Amino acid sequence: MSNTFSFRLIASDGAARRGEFTTPHGAVQTPAFMPVGTQATVKGLAPEAVRLTGAEIVLGNTYHLMLRPGAERIAALGGLHKFMNWPHAILTDSGGFQVMSLSELRKLSEQGVTFRSHLDGAMVELTPERAIEIQALLGADISMQLDECLKLPAAREEIARAMQLSLRWAERSKRAFESVCGGRALFGIVQGGDDLALRGESAQALNRIGFDGYAIGGLAVGEPQEVMLKIVAETAPMLPEARPRYLMGVGTPHDLLEAVARGIDMFDCVLPTRNGRHGMAFSRYGAINLSNARHANDARPLDEQSRHPVARTYSRAYLHHLTKANEILGQVLLSTVNLAYYQELMAGMREAIAGRRFADFRDETMAGWERGDIPAL
Amino acid sequence: MSNTFSFRLIASDGAARRGEFTTPHGAVQTPAFMPVGTQATVKGLAPEAVRLTGAEIVLGNTYHLMLRPGAERIAALGGLHKFMNWPHAILTDSGGFQVMSLSELRKLSEQGVTFRSHLDGAMVELTPERAIEIQALLGADISMQLDECLKLPAAREEIARAMQLSLRWAERSKRAFESVCGGRALFGIVQGGDDLALRGESAQALNRIGFDGYAIGGLAVGEPQEVMLKIVAETAPMLPEARPRYLMGVGTPHDLLEAVARGIDMFDCVLPTRNGRHGMAFSRYGAINLSNARHANDARPLDEQSRHPVARTYSRAYLHHLTKANEILGQVLLSTVNLAYYQELMAGMREAIAGRRFADFRDETMAGWERGDIPAL
Repeated sequence: MSNTFSFRLIASDGAARRGEFTTPHGAVQTPAFMPVGTQATVKGLAPEAVRLTGAEIVLGNTYHLMLRPGAERIAALGGLHKFMNWPHAILTDSGGFQVMSLSELRKLSEQGVTFRSHLDGAMVELTPERAIEIQALLGADISMQLDECLKLPAAREEIARAMQLSLRWAERSKRAFESVCGGRALFGIVQGGDDLALRGESAQALNRIGFDGYAIGGLAVGEPQEVMLKIVAETAPMLPEARPRYLMGVGTPHDLLEAVARGIDMFDCVLPTRNGRHGMAFSRYGAINLSNARHANDARPLDEQSRHPVARTYSRAYLHHLTKANEILGQVLLSTVNLAYYQELMAGMREAIAGRRFADFRDETMAGWERGDIPAL
Repeated sequence: MSNTFSFRLIASDGAARRGEFTTPHGAVQTPAFMPVGTQATVKGLAPEAVRLTGAEIVLGNTYHLMLRPGAERIAALGGLHKFMNWPHAILTDSGGFQVMSLSELRKLSEQGVTFRSHLDGAMVELTPERAIEIQALLGADISMQLDECLKLPAAREEIARAMQLSLRWAERSKRAFESVCGGRALFGIVQGGDDLALRGESAQALNRIGFDGYAIGGLAVGEPQEVMLKIVAETAPMLPEARPRYLMGVGTPHDLLEAVARGIDMFDCVLPTRNGRHGMAFSRYGAINLSNARHANDARPLDEQSRHPVARTYSRAYLHHLTKANEILGQVLLSTVNLAYYQELMAGMREAIAGRRFADFRDETMAGWERGDIPAL
């Protein structure tokens, strides 16, 4: 197991890339999907169960963990890997996105952002330096710079201001990181909203600073999918080929397929677990709403072709029952099924890119989703 | 695997008994604890996880399952074992207890009980014959007769009336069962509240009817533990030695230890899962409240000596964090730990009885609980 971060491009097919990065906690095959472990747990799944879905890396949320149980506490307990019993790779976000979306009374300045904790009302300051320090305390294999993420639509001058601030924070993040890195990686985040010129300026400036990987932030924040994919398609080629590219907070299975086609290597999203907790399953034949009464007498499993036993074992009738009865096990099983489907989709993309048949894979996958779920009995 | 129900007494030590019963879905070692799978799921655990705690049999609730998803539906889907993916033994209750505790507008008559469903307000009738029919549709390995269960304290004439009604229902249950049994077992239920004469009358009459096993019902319904244990101590010897004895709805680890000492072979209770969902762990050193701040920095596991990996693996600090953050995984892990502790306690009792050192085991176990949990760091 390598003790430093490195990325290797294994194959490409059009803009789609098949690669691998190594971390002090194991290698990760790309394109990769990272389940979100917001509060030091991928909601509903024990870490072994997360691993059995095929995940090689999970995401931890700095905002949540700094507030509870606290970064210093996790460090004293041996770091986030040990705390949550996940011995594989971890990427942490910088906390910036949740400060914007969850906290009240936030005050943004050149120095950083001060906000009121949504848990106990305490005033907390997050600066680029503190975000790096927290992520080092957590022991993240990949840390993210603090950035300012706007909701779209937004005025161009506002987008430009936030992008420029994020660049200055990128510089400070890099400097702070250099003193604590210890084999770990730091990613910069391209901002610039839906403005391609600003995206280009951001990408170029980050490239000059130099990071181990590059994220595209500020997307999937309210804009149509076609806008998001256009920004991705234009931004990805501006990023260094020899570094992984991470599209933050995205997305649906269709988003993933289209973004990989445009050169993205990494994703994270709460959809598989959040929708699973609300009775919705993702599958090769599109979304399935298990609360629908049509499943009540259906002895068939969700997906006989799935690589994961949960999707092959439990009947739709049982999953429907658990969903209607609001049983924890229903939430757990559907979250598991969804994470497994996301991983199976990523594995399919990786194989297709390596075999230079990504376009066919994309067509077949889309055809499955368009076919839709099997009709009721 | 035997296709009929039978019970074999393997050893005894004082009043405590070590035995085994066989069902069409496997053998069960006694004294046995049955996790409660109210709505066709032991709350929070996949069936493999239930099995890994050591359970050989679970309990299903007729009241819940008849209302949702419905007994005929479960039968059409292949029975409860298949529905919930639990290939081992299942005992179902008769539904009577929950009719009394959960439904509104219930009307009791000689014929049976009519009640309003707590789910959709529909009026439903449950008779001794229908309770047997439902349990046959579910495919229970062990069915229970319908009885009337009173809360204590209650007037003697009321207890006598309910006990006599339960006896007449026992007769009707037996007749109904004889036409549908197919290798399955039917247990009668001794009633009589806290009145030993009535308990004796009930036990004798049930014995004359003849059942595969005998339950003691109507306890753990509000009376002090010493009253319950006195009734158990006096009632157990009135039951046939060659049949299993089941104390319904009991209880705490201490209740189990004391009831085994008085000749009980089987138990069910929601405490391990319910308390687990509320941050409480059972252990060899007594109850542990994981929401207590004293665990926040404690890297030690719940119980290094546990036979179950969950109790040995996750730190108290992590379980505290999950409990405070109200994460599903906290509920799942603590439910697992508690079910595993209950099974470890039962296994310890079985070994002690077989080795004729039950009194020592009881003293040692009590001493552990009295010692209490390890102090905070």
